[in-house]
Amino acid sequence: MFENFFSQRIKNTPSSFIREILKVTQKPEIISFAGGLPNPISFPQEELKISMNRIADKYGDKIYQYSTTLGLDSLRQYIVDRYKKIWNMQISIDNVIITTGSQQALDLIGKVFINENDKVMVEKPSYLGLLQSFCLYSADFVQTKLNDDGLDIEELKKTLKTHKPKLAYLIPNFQNPTGLTYSVQNRKEVFEVIKDEDMILVQDDPYGELRFEEGDRIPYIGLNQTEKNIYLGSFSKIVTPGMRLGYIIANKEIIHMLETAKQASDLHSNIFGQYLISDYLYNNDLDKHIEKIKKLYKTQANAMVGAMEKYFPKNIKYTIPKGGMFSWVTLEEGKSSVDLFNKAIKKNVAFVPGDPFYVNEHNVNTLRLNYTNADSETIEEGIKRLSEALKEI
Amino acid sequence: MFENFFSQRIKNTPSSFIREILKVTQKPEIISFAGGLPNPISFPQEELKISMNRIADKYGDKIYQYSTTLGLDSLRQYIVDRYKKIWNMQISIDNVIITTGSQQALDLIGKVFINENDKVMVEKPSYLGLLQSFCLYSADFVQTKLNDDGLDIEELKKTLKTHKPKLAYLIPNFQNPTGLTYSVQNRKEVFEVIKDEDMILVQDDPYGELRFEEGDRIPYIGLNQTEKNIYLGSFSKIVTPGMRLGYIIANKEIIHMLETAKQASDLHSNIFGQYLISDYLYNNDLDKHIEKIKKLYKTQANAMVGAMEKYFPKNIKYTIPKGGMFSWVTLEEGKSSVDLFNKAIKKNVAFVPGDPFYVNEHNVNTLRLNYTNADSETIEEGIKRLSEALKEI
Repeated sequence: MFENFFSQRIKNTPSSFIREILKVTQKPEIISFAGGLPNPISFPQEELKISMNRIADKYGDKIYQYSTTLGLDSLRQYIVDRYKKIWNMQISIDNVIITTGSQQALDLIGKVFINENDKVMVEKPSYLGLLQSFCLYSADFVQTKLNDDGLDIEELKKTLKTHKPKLAYLIPNFQNPTGLTYSVQNRKEVFEVIKDEDMILVQDDPYGELRFEEGDRIPYIGLNQTEKNIYLGSFSKIVTPGMRLGYIIANKEIIHMLETAKQASDLHSNIFGQYLISDYLYNNDLDKHIEKIKKLYKTQANAMVGAMEKYFPKNIKYTIPKGGMFSWVTLEEGKSSVDLFNKAIKKNVAFVPGDPFYVNEHNVNTLRLNYTNADSETIEEGIKRLSEALKEI
Repeated sequence: MFENFFSQRIKNTPSSFIREILKVTQKPEIISFAGGLPNPISFPQEELKISMNRIADKYGDKIYQYSTTLGLDSLRQYIVDRYKKIWNMQISIDNVIITTGSQQALDLIGKVFINENDKVMVEKPSYLGLLQSFCLYSADFVQTKLNDDGLDIEELKKTLKTHKPKLAYLIPNFQNPTGLTYSVQNRKEVFEVIKDEDMILVQDDPYGELRFEEGDRIPYIGLNQTEKNIYLGSFSKIVTPGMRLGYIIANKEIIHMLETAKQASDLHSNIFGQYLISDYLYNNDLDKHIEKIKKLYKTQANAMVGAMEKYFPKNIKYTIPKGGMFSWVTLEEGKSSVDLFNKAIKKNVAFVPGDPFYVNEHNVNTLRLNYTNADSETIEEGIKRLSEALKEI
């Protein structure tokens, strides 16, 4: 009825594959590895309840009133202090804008940088929320293959030479969907290749704090070496996603443009949530809280990897996560994970087929498994069911 | 430094005039009629504190987890029930999507409907947040004059014939910036003129609940008579703007597209706030609360109108608000409200010059006054100062 009214961009935007899948997987009998939800253990509920009462008493009507587009100063200062401490970044709150979750960060970056048909380089596979978001700005995606240790350097060189992308979007830590992390060496090589290019590099990092295997944090690509880097962060995986609070760290000139874009998008992010998270962060030990999350995710990841080792045929490959929330499974060449999904759902187990993480590829042989929302026994049972489904394709 | 990277759309978007003005007006000695903030009396702080503790106890981790893009069912149901009761709308929750404030509603509508250079009809003057928002989608605005009783019907006919706009955006109740309300008769005439046009009509209504002068609510243009109507509402002016919660009511097909656009924009609005407002609404008497706000705004509006009558020269025109938050002042032909602003600020009184509410017009002779954030004495003193400044231009 309204077909003639809708914009070209919205008609071109795939409605979420995952949303459709989640509808199927909500039956209680289904073991679902499809979602990307953090475990509720990551929400410090008791502490947040103390904080909400404290901010209500302390700030009165300020927590309910309109506020500034850039975000609450104290929260921006916390981010500055944390990135200075961890990464020795020389930034001030003028380099930080609070966003309505990282998803809005993607939307704002699309608004500020992408003209129709601008080339954007993403990993292959990439985060589907980014693909959907930039699709609304009619970006022309080019994908560069992701290997076990990071971007494929030869393919990266070729992509840059052929397409000259204006912007690259990478998730270097515990990537969604693959769970992979770029090695120190790979990051250095990537930076060597891109450093003289006329290209903005966006590094999205929602999972970086969740390294549960031994090893140090690995510095961002080109950390402290270029003004063309944009860093995204989020409180969704370490405090609460329900408040929709993330942030962008960038050069001030970029922040100024993002501020204009954000003002037109939602004026500002909910200020109650900003006071709440800020109060929580200043009155509690975030790192101690994160340890608790990591301990659980390690157990869950081990359960999944252990079960895959036990039940999967030897020709099925999967990534072994060192952090984050996902493992990525590769079936035999020529098999389709959508076919597997249809068999699996009949055995009451679900996952996300790889298709929506690629640009213009269908019936791929890869799939994403999430392990953060089930206990070890359930995970083992789910993988067992999945291995039964594997026999039928 | 990044000039070559920025998108055309963001370069074309005016950074907010009001934001610049508010920076100047934040000194404590300045009486500011510039903002558009609701009075803190409109935030039911005690009740919200009770509700936040109740939802924390009742719903546990659900108030912190990811949630659905369309919004919390109970909140959508409340909206359905209220619009059924007041307007006899035959809608279900499938006709409602929760947005991150009404500003996001504008952004989503821009995403879903506006192709580059699509004609959009707005009032003259119009809400600057809409102009800014649709500017990012490269809309081609056409303005139709607003008279004391609503849209200028002859100009409307001419605009439709000449430009064939795809979408019209109107604020029929206590408009921002003018404070004007379309009469019953004018609404009927507008609908007669537009009903056979191929045009979506968006009616934004953040102030409709705030009628403080005698008289009934006036039905929307074309209420219950067309599927091409989109209604916007908000909790910002009657409960709290800090939570950033508004909503869109529309045909299901449109809601489906808005859902895709919203998923790409911020996944969903903050779910804690949705639980909070929903709990507040089901456990308190909203209409009684609104009475309290209206009583205060009536006093404040009367103070401003009374002071303007007392101090302003007779050749200065101003609207007499029957609700909402603004009065609109028209200076003599040829005078500039920006000139007045520069004089006024030296006398420690501020307002918003009319310029940003027009498309491509500058140095206009109109200006916006807000009266909801000062007591009667301060309002009188501010208008007195303004009348002094008037003598200098």
